Amino acid sequence: MNGYIKRNAFKVLVKWIFENQHKLQTIRWCSSSLRYKELEDSVQADHVAPSPTQKPHPQITPEISFKYEDLQVRLAAPYQLTPKPEAKELGFGKYFTDHMLKIYYHKELGGWQKPEIMPFENLNIHPAAKALHYAIQLFEGLKAYRGVDDKIRLFRPELNMERMNLAAQRSGLPMFDGEELVQCIKRLVQIDQEWVPHSETSTLYIRPTLIGIEPTFGIMTPESALLFVILSPVSAYYKASSDGAVSIFADPNVVRAFPGGVGNRKVGSNYGPTIEATARAAKLGHHQVLWLFGPDHQLTEVGAMNIFMVHINDQGDKQLSTPPLNGLILPGVTRRSIIELASQWEDIVVREEVITMERVIQLNQQGRLLEMFGAGTAVIISPISRVGFLEQNIDIPTMKQSNPVFQRVKDTLLAIQYGHVEHPYAKVIS
Amino acid sequence: MNGYIKRNAFKVLVKWIFENQHKLQTIRWCSSSLRYKELEDSVQADHVAPSPTQKPHPQITPEISFKYEDLQVRLAAPYQLTPKPEAKELGFGKYFTDHMLKIYYHKELGGWQKPEIMPFENLNIHPAAKALHYAIQLFEGLKAYRGVDDKIRLFRPELNMERMNLAAQRSGLPMFDGEELVQCIKRLVQIDQEWVPHSETSTLYIRPTLIGIEPTFGIMTPESALLFVILSPVSAYYKASSDGAVSIFADPNVVRAFPGGVGNRKVGSNYGPTIEATARAAKLGHHQVLWLFGPDHQLTEVGAMNIFMVHINDQGDKQLSTPPLNGLILPGVTRRSIIELASQWEDIVVREEVITMERVIQLNQQGRLLEMFGAGTAVIISPISRVGFLEQNIDIPTMKQSNPVFQRVKDTLLAIQYGHVEHPYAKVIS
Repeated sequence: MNGYIKRNAFKVLVKWIFENQHKLQTIRWCSSSLRYKELEDSVQADHVAPSPTQKPHPQITPEISFKYEDLQVRLAAPYQLTPKPEAKELGFGKYFTDHMLKIYYHKELGGWQKPEIMPFENLNIHPAAKALHYAIQLFEGLKAYRGVDDKIRLFRPELNMERMNLAAQRSGLPMFDGEELVQCIKRLVQIDQEWVPHSETSTLYIRPTLIGIEPTFGIMTPESALLFVILSPVSAYYKASSDGAVSIFADPNVVRAFPGGVGNRKVGSNYGPTIEATARAAKLGHHQVLWLFGPDHQLTEVGAMNIFMVHINDQGDKQLSTPPLNGLILPGVTRRSIIELASQWEDIVVREEVITMERVIQLNQQGRLLEMFGAGTAVIISPISRVGFLEQNIDIPTMKQSNPVFQRVKDTLLAIQYGHVEHPYAKVIS
Repeated sequence: MNGYIKRNAFKVLVKWIFENQHKLQTIRWCSSSLRYKELEDSVQADHVAPSPTQKPHPQITPEISFKYEDLQVRLAAPYQLTPKPEAKELGFGKYFTDHMLKIYYHKELGGWQKPEIMPFENLNIHPAAKALHYAIQLFEGLKAYRGVDDKIRLFRPELNMERMNLAAQRSGLPMFDGEELVQCIKRLVQIDQEWVPHSETSTLYIRPTLIGIEPTFGIMTPESALLFVILSPVSAYYKASSDGAVSIFADPNVVRAFPGGVGNRKVGSNYGPTIEATARAAKLGHHQVLWLFGPDHQLTEVGAMNIFMVHINDQGDKQLSTPPLNGLILPGVTRRSIIELASQWEDIVVREEVITMERVIQLNQQGRLLEMFGAGTAVIISPISRVGFLEQNIDIPTMKQSNPVFQRVKDTLLAIQYGHVEHPYAKVIS
């Protein structure tokens, strides 16, 4: 058709946008003018530190969930057990333990079936299963830690269950009682407890996954689903630089999540579309992608982590900031724990606030930017020493601080996770 | 933290957006100010009717593809053959034929392996396969038609191959030579040719699928992949109203695709996040969702179809319009064929142009809106008689036209597909 005219009109429009970007900053929500209600709901749902009396969200009637008391266990035969790899070979998610948990859901059979623990095996999936075509799938990630007292602990698993149910609700997958799944997971970890590394630099990563397996091509709620849990002994998520810090690449041309989408839910669809950009960042010498959003280049997440910044604020105080849960950001368990823990420290102000690239650059130029780091279950804490953005590399002085916040945060989390201190976040399971 | 203040600030912002929406119309690209280059590329890549000398896009070096000449065939034993269902029971994608095609890719083994046709079977997939966790998956949809001459035809399969390779490139999955896959698919259809319905209301739907199967948890390009093709005899994609028309629901709160995302690629991640909204639309009595984008509520797609509108334009001519390929819209084979075919009709003007809900409502009020319809391989042509939007139901007079364009388009396509006329779009394969 008239492609030339269209492209030219587009050029004019883009030029106008370039020249008027400063005017656009206040209307960053323009593409979702009607999203107020859902976002408010989301802020409430994801909001940090609900009061102890507040019921977990979302609720499901317990009678429709599977139950731990129905759990059936079939142990692997001795000859099926696989040798445990050396700690230095672990990597992230390359080795798996001897057993797995499976729970089928079939609407026609009344819904959730009995949970089963069995020897680790391949899945037998119909090639038309909706999970393989329409990404009707979601997952969680948590860890089992072997403490200094040799006891095994989970870290706030109830938050993973809550998030998993929110993702199921968003994906047309069946919900369940999170406490029942935690009980099943505990039993699975107990059975494979020798796979929990005897180390404070390795852990057993737990991966609950829920997929739609109905084998029909209609793009609709699946009537059959499979919840499975597999376990993998892991060390570092990725190789950082020699000083332990990472370089991240902020490309305004790629978007991880958008209003009206699923950026705040841990579903497969948030990850597949990021592979290409991550590979491109790696080619440019960066470890991860810093995902921006909007014409003012708001920081949202980094790789598969939440992002934090430490700076000296306008009042001269040291401040720890992270972007608010606006629907585009995964409500990380580590993120929430950091906010809650650091809020009790008297020498630092904690804020959930919008952080733009302009602000990062400005603070850095003024010498007020102290640290940036990513945080998540897989990586724990990942200090950031460089940000590639619009043809420049911005050096961040994270590794130059004498007493960095990222290290204090990391030490605090590890102390809880490995049982150096007693803390309600850590639940002894074995 | 200060959730109350945040929510209030947000309310003010949303109110401002509501009151200033008309000013925002020209800046609908505001959230992707830097996307000019990619969008221009995309317009070029997806642009309708490339000149015959133009090379198909994207190119891969043939030597790294699998090859048809390496195809290995293992036929099902007679006792493995399944009975063919009655035409009236078919539905869409519920029954599968006796054979399937599988082609593995293993980087460590040099890349693509030999194509294999084998009896239809479940897939044996490692539970950590990236396709199940990170939606590293894509698919295609085309059909084999049994013509009036009893010959079997494919409709422009080279366009599906081109789109499949573009999706692979975007997903970190291996590319291949599309002509080689078409050859393999032809052979598969020939083997299962008795499954091609002897009917002009049913067809054999062909579903090529490419998934990342490397069983590791890193969110990165998979080093192993599986391309498989399954076949399903199908009739109507969904049950329309008794007059054959559908009602669609346009909810500005849900967004299918976004600049910087994968809306123009046929990947699983575009579908999972739509399930919830589709279920909600169904509860309100609608058949499909009309996906809007931006503050001016641009029409993008409807369900899993492209959308078309027929109206009397400002010059008094009958015009067939569909939104342009701006990166948010799937470049449909049916869409492109309709544009190309109708462009040769002298009594109608064809335009790719932005269509907003405001425009739809205005044209309808002026009595100038004649028809709306969806178009896609699965549904062919689906006339739309009602649009639910912002608490109102807008009646569209599609079924009241004496000589509707949608019927002429449908008849033209069917005549080509079922061999009533000879046309280069249809390739006889058996």
